[in-house]
Amino acid sequence: VTLSVWPLAGIPEVRPGDDLARLLLEAVRRAGLELADGDVLAVTSKVVAKAEGRLVPLPDDPAGRERVLRETVAAETARVVARRGRLVIAETRHGLVGANAGVDASNAGAPGTLVLLPADPDASARELRRELGCAVLITDSFGRPWRNGQCEVAIGCAGLAVADDWRGRPDSDGRELAATVIAVADEAAAAADLVRGKDTREPAVRIRGLERYVTSDDGPGAVALVRALADDLFR
Amino acid sequence: VTLSVWPLAGIPEVRPGDDLARLLLEAVRRAGLELADGDVLAVTSKVVAKAEGRLVPLPDDPAGRERVLRETVAAETARVVARRGRLVIAETRHGLVGANAGVDASNAGAPGTLVLLPADPDASARELRRELGCAVLITDSFGRPWRNGQCEVAIGCAGLAVADDWRGRPDSDGRELAATVIAVADEAAAAADLVRGKDTREPAVRIRGLERYVTSDDGPGAVALVRALADDLFR
Repeated sequence: VTLSVWPLAGIPEVRPGDDLARLLLEAVRRAGLELADGDVLAVTSKVVAKAEGRLVPLPDDPAGRERVLRETVAAETARVVARRGRLVIAETRHGLVGANAGVDASNAGAPGTLVLLPADPDASARELRRELGCAVLITDSFGRPWRNGQCEVAIGCAGLAVADDWRGRPDSDGRELAATVIAVADEAAAAADLVRGKDTREPAVRIRGLERYVTSDDGPGAVALVRALADDLFR
Repeated sequence: VTLSVWPLAGIPEVRPGDDLARLLLEAVRRAGLELADGDVLAVTSKVVAKAEGRLVPLPDDPAGRERVLRETVAAETARVVARRGRLVIAETRHGLVGANAGVDASNAGAPGTLVLLPADPDASARELRRELGCAVLITDSFGRPWRNGQCEVAIGCAGLAVADDWRGRPDSDGRELAATVIAVADEAAAAADLVRGKDTREPAVRIRGLERYVTSDDGPGAVALVRALADDLFR
């Protein structure tokens, strides 16, 4: 197996109501690429959220901005997981845990705008898969306990096995694996992130070489990577 | 930027005292590949640990096995982070947090053997970098709070920027980024994992396309990705 990862350049700033599938297909064509059956297109949650109008304008005055940020984060929060000073680590309705419940002002397309996570990233991925004809990941970067920096993970998924469950299968020695479940969709999101800058407007990346994880149906979505509360020792 | 990831097939079972660099170079040659200056070779911690003799034989009787496992995990543990039933989430001397402090019986090369983490994975990476002439990652899979499944992360690193710190740099809109630090070495470890099976004896993977993250010196090592205790809300 060999993996190849290409960023798609030249996608214009995405606005509410834009036909994201069309913009992505145009970028694929312009890059001289194509989307084959076994390909995966990884798209940042930010452009999906923008196309879906998941934007909140901020007022001009600092106090107002602070208040709207706080209210917006609260509205997106299903559960506060940790808090220190102004930093809130919160779980969203999707079960995603991150700073400010995923509410972010970076790469918003306009100064003074907050971008929320897509309302239902798995549904967005399924819709894009129908229109693009290949597997789709919707990704965002999240901080991790214990480790510095953020990694890109899959918050929406359609047409790709989100995990490769080796439990009960033999290792190289023939010994049965007891706990190995590879979070394929998260690793693919991470691979996609490596070819992008944070200032290069490359919200979409084509991944080729994951054919063995590509499925004939949409599959359970990235929500299957959210750990059940009862199994989680850290929330 | 385009990223390409190739697994190296045909590496024999690694034994204590083996010259791992030589085995890796032979596998590169056999694959018809080469290692260029800007390449990254990702190697699983398991083969590094085996070459370094970080193995503990288990006795035959179940009670003895249970006892040796418990004692070995305890010896590798610097701090217990969480515990439920027989599951221990423990921090190692390296600052890595995972099940059983990284002690693992899978792909051990022989039944009834435990494999520990390398004693100093960053030092191992530096030594391999000297011998291979390219950047080196030593990787292992770790579970994550909040999310199902494991992702591969970098536990040793030489010659690759472990993180890409965007704080203070502008996003696509010219707005200064406040918190964005990409854990490049962990994302590269994840990308490498996507081309491997857990039963295919492919402990090494060549990554091409990360030239902009490749450094002229060894750099700080993967230890720079360990979050300082004072900054960590979850241990």
